[in-house]
Amino acid sequence: MEIEKSKKILIVGLGLLGGSYAQVFTEKGYEVYAITRKQSTIDYALEHGMIKAGTTEIDTEMIAKADIAVFALYPHIFVDWIDANGKYFKKGAIITDVTGVKCAIVDEIQSRLPEGVEFIGAHPMAGREVYGIENSNPAMFKGANYIVTPTAKNTEYAIETCKAIGEMLGFANVSVISPQKHDRMIAFLSQLTHCIAVALMTCNDDANLCCYTGDSFRDLTRIARINEDMWSELFMLNKDMLISEIKAFEGELEKLRRSMETDDVETMKKMMRLSTERRGMFDKKLS
Amino acid sequence: MEIEKSKKILIVGLGLLGGSYAQVFTEKGYEVYAITRKQSTIDYALEHGMIKAGTTEIDTEMIAKADIAVFALYPHIFVDWIDANGKYFKKGAIITDVTGVKCAIVDEIQSRLPEGVEFIGAHPMAGREVYGIENSNPAMFKGANYIVTPTAKNTEYAIETCKAIGEMLGFANVSVISPQKHDRMIAFLSQLTHCIAVALMTCNDDANLCCYTGDSFRDLTRIARINEDMWSELFMLNKDMLISEIKAFEGELEKLRRSMETDDVETMKKMMRLSTERRGMFDKKLS
Repeated sequence: MEIEKSKKILIVGLGLLGGSYAQVFTEKGYEVYAITRKQSTIDYALEHGMIKAGTTEIDTEMIAKADIAVFALYPHIFVDWIDANGKYFKKGAIITDVTGVKCAIVDEIQSRLPEGVEFIGAHPMAGREVYGIENSNPAMFKGANYIVTPTAKNTEYAIETCKAIGEMLGFANVSVISPQKHDRMIAFLSQLTHCIAVALMTCNDDANLCCYTGDSFRDLTRIARINEDMWSELFMLNKDMLISEIKAFEGELEKLRRSMETDDVETMKKMMRLSTERRGMFDKKLS
Repeated sequence: MEIEKSKKILIVGLGLLGGSYAQVFTEKGYEVYAITRKQSTIDYALEHGMIKAGTTEIDTEMIAKADIAVFALYPHIFVDWIDANGKYFKKGAIITDVTGVKCAIVDEIQSRLPEGVEFIGAHPMAGREVYGIENSNPAMFKGANYIVTPTAKNTEYAIETCKAIGEMLGFANVSVISPQKHDRMIAFLSQLTHCIAVALMTCNDDANLCCYTGDSFRDLTRIARINEDMWSELFMLNKDMLISEIKAFEGELEKLRRSMETDDVETMKKMMRLSTERRGMFDKKLS
């Protein structure tokens, strides 16, 4: 489906992702409004033609006008925001987000919204190790995955609207899965990888390493430059799944280490062949 | 120093790296010869003007003509090759390599060469997850690190020649360290990262993962597409150092996991801050 051009869009939290969403909605001809923390962000967005208007205050009229609202905030700030201001949304408004965990927030948000205002979770699997509207760029959505995470409470209309947003943003692949499945996937694909990158950086304090490194280490630690407030919150909100994924990974790494300790080259090669075979599926399709 | 233009260069093993070396030496005006396994590789190199001549045979005249020889072979094939043919090099010839481990081969090679033929180890920290001369491209050396690993047996002239090769190839940074220090560095920077990538790919068999992944997982597993013969050999030749680096990493990952299990957010954030701070040093300098 296509979202009607008359729909008014509200972005709450105008950073790397929020800013990129704003650019696309504006380019496609929608009226885009923004509520964010800093006036300098609003100024930047206005100067670059990303939004029609924006404010750092809780503008109840702006909230009431929104047909679709996208939240790009830290999880706990998102919940608090809805708690305080969810009541200002009009009946029929659809609210979505970019939050990296789902089980911990979906019920919280849905239960705080007034009758007729619907929250449908989404997770754009795109990001960068930099932050802020100055770094926003819809090009990062190209070839990437977008995940919609409905619950039994969601209408078909909201699910279709949310999928349409992902397609409009330029994602190559839009999937619909449960919040539970999302959180297990993300524990493995995103949170575990961030844990690995951090542990790689903290386990060796040789200051000269950068003179000897190759691309493999640079690639594995690109995400080691990490926002500790955001990621510690995401980890703690999904900690059971994440701990279980870390343990599974620890088991495989130990298996590989033991193959060296016991000169079991065949097990080592077998793991490498499986790894090579599976990795082929993960290339980004940029065509 | 600059290497005299009259010097004849021999590349043994014309793959991704050997082919890239050949291109640079030829572009700079040197006569480049090649010995490699397949005739199709020689044909490709000749068609693309990468070499002056090449053969799949042991051409003793070609070997005797070389002033500088670069070996890009699997470690055990390199040692066997020198064992059989090292005697054909002329006095004064300098031999270097691209091998990913040093302690296990440097003495082996040096002890097999005739008086007056000098081996000086080197490791270009550049590579790709693809192979073969068709993928060779000296652009991969730009911004990268090149490591020279002399022993007490090496002359100043050989060390300077080897450094000059690294600079000529376009590496941003040329370092000189011992084979022992090299092997410890590489166990951490390159071999451990490959182990992690393999374990990440083998620890989850969900075939749908590719629909939900983001760039962090793609980046961490780029090198999971791995040549099992080459890497199992490199791992086994450096296994003591590699096992010790895997254990150090396992310890840090466990520390991070325990911080989740005990709700110790402060330890988690502290690791993330250290990680962020250290990662800043590793960016490639492409200026």
